[in-house]
Amino acid sequence: MWAQTKITLPNSGRGTYDITADIQNEVAKSGIDHGLAHIFIHHTSASLIICENADPSVRTDLEAYMSRAVPDGDPLFKHTQEGPDDMSAHVRSILTQTALTIPVTHAALALGTWQGIYLWEHRHGSHTRTVTVTVQGDRRE
Amino acid sequence: MWAQTKITLPNSGRGTYDITADIQNEVAKSGIDHGLAHIFIHHTSASLIICENADPSVRTDLEAYMSRAVPDGDPLFKHTQEGPDDMSAHVRSILTQTALTIPVTHAALALGTWQGIYLWEHRHGSHTRTVTVTVQGDRRE
Amino acid sequence: MWAQTKITLPNSGRGTYDITADIQNEVAKSGIDHGLAHIFIHHTSASLIICENADPSVRTDLEAYMSRAVPDGDPLFKHTQEGPDDMSAHVRSILTQTALTIPVTHAALALGTWQGIYLWEHRHGSHTRTVTVTVQGDRRE
Repeated sequence: MWAQTKITLPNSGRGTYDITADIQNEVAKSGIDHGLAHIFIHHTSASLIICENADPSVRTDLEAYMSRAVPDGDPLFKHTQEGPDDMSAHVRSILTQTALTIPVTHAALALGTWQGIYLWEHRHGSHTRTVTVTVQGDRRE
Repeated sequence: MWAQTKITLPNSGRGTYDITADIQNEVAKSGIDHGLAHIFIHHTSASLIICENADPSVRTDLEAYMSRAVPDGDPLFKHTQEGPDDMSAHVRSILTQTALTIPVTHAALALGTWQGIYLWEHRHGSHTRTVTVTVQGDRRE
Repeated sequence: MWAQTKITLPNSGRGTYDITADIQNEVAKSGIDHGLAHIFIHHTSASLIICENADPSVRTDLEAYMSRAVPDGDPLFKHTQEGPDDMSAHVRSILTQTALTIPVTHAALALGTWQGIYLWEHRHGSHTRTVTVTVQGDRRE
């Protein structure tokens, strides 16, 4: 069994956005009991991560870390047409994930207690990002 | 065909642990001849990598690299409730993998000659980590 | 439905090589209409990325970034048997991807407009790299 849906996710610029419920909703609609859910972002300046979901300071610190490790406006970069966050957004995307695959067990995402799924927008401006969710597996026997 | 199993993997603190045989064992039990094996770690301060498996100095150097790139006790971090390795463990996990997918060919993991699967514990204390292994594919025809 | 093929990809040393057409070719041969394509590189000193495919300066900048973040000949490294790019190649591989999974929709890779699939050779010398492509899904109904 396969279920594949394209969803659009608006955001308000650089930062992490919890999309766990959006993905869980696609798993529920699929009717699949056990298998895998695959999430793919169709962009090269926003990415996907699985991150601690209890204390928001984890994601504040993560943003601070990435801003230091891959600084906007780095003089190393020539690809700056869209501004100082253009190339840094591409590097951040490549150091994280364009796709995630998560087990589906008992008709739900089998995430750990402290795991959430986040869309990480790396550009400062607001964007609407497209994600394809593919759920595959078996119905309950 | 699908086979999904949750396994627990104890460790003795920060470092890389070869779990190739544990995953190969799940592939063998599944009876699947060709397809894919998916490994998912249900935690945000330990992760999975595929790494060179011949010379242990590769993993010593990798640990040294990560300790410098994402230092424990970085004054940048506010999320320090569990100690100086709390937030660095989350960043290390995000820069590596929460899940791996590996081809299954002739009833075995189709790894390259020098590829091993490692659980990378990022916290200094001993932990027991939970991993879900999902094997899907076809039996031999 | 499953289709699994091993392909060999020669390169001329460190740099990014667009392999999108090679993977698309495997998807087309599979006859699969919708599902997932999985690409796995059987090496620990070359990796896979999805990167912006319009402006080559993105990949020049990416190479410059990685050369600074994971320098060849870093005195931190002990694993140097094969030269100053031996250990840096392993670290670069671990910070990027050994495998990619991409949706297949309407018998084609469902990549975003600006997404290309690249093999990133991290060693300076020419290499022939082996990749396994696994396509799974349903035929058109």
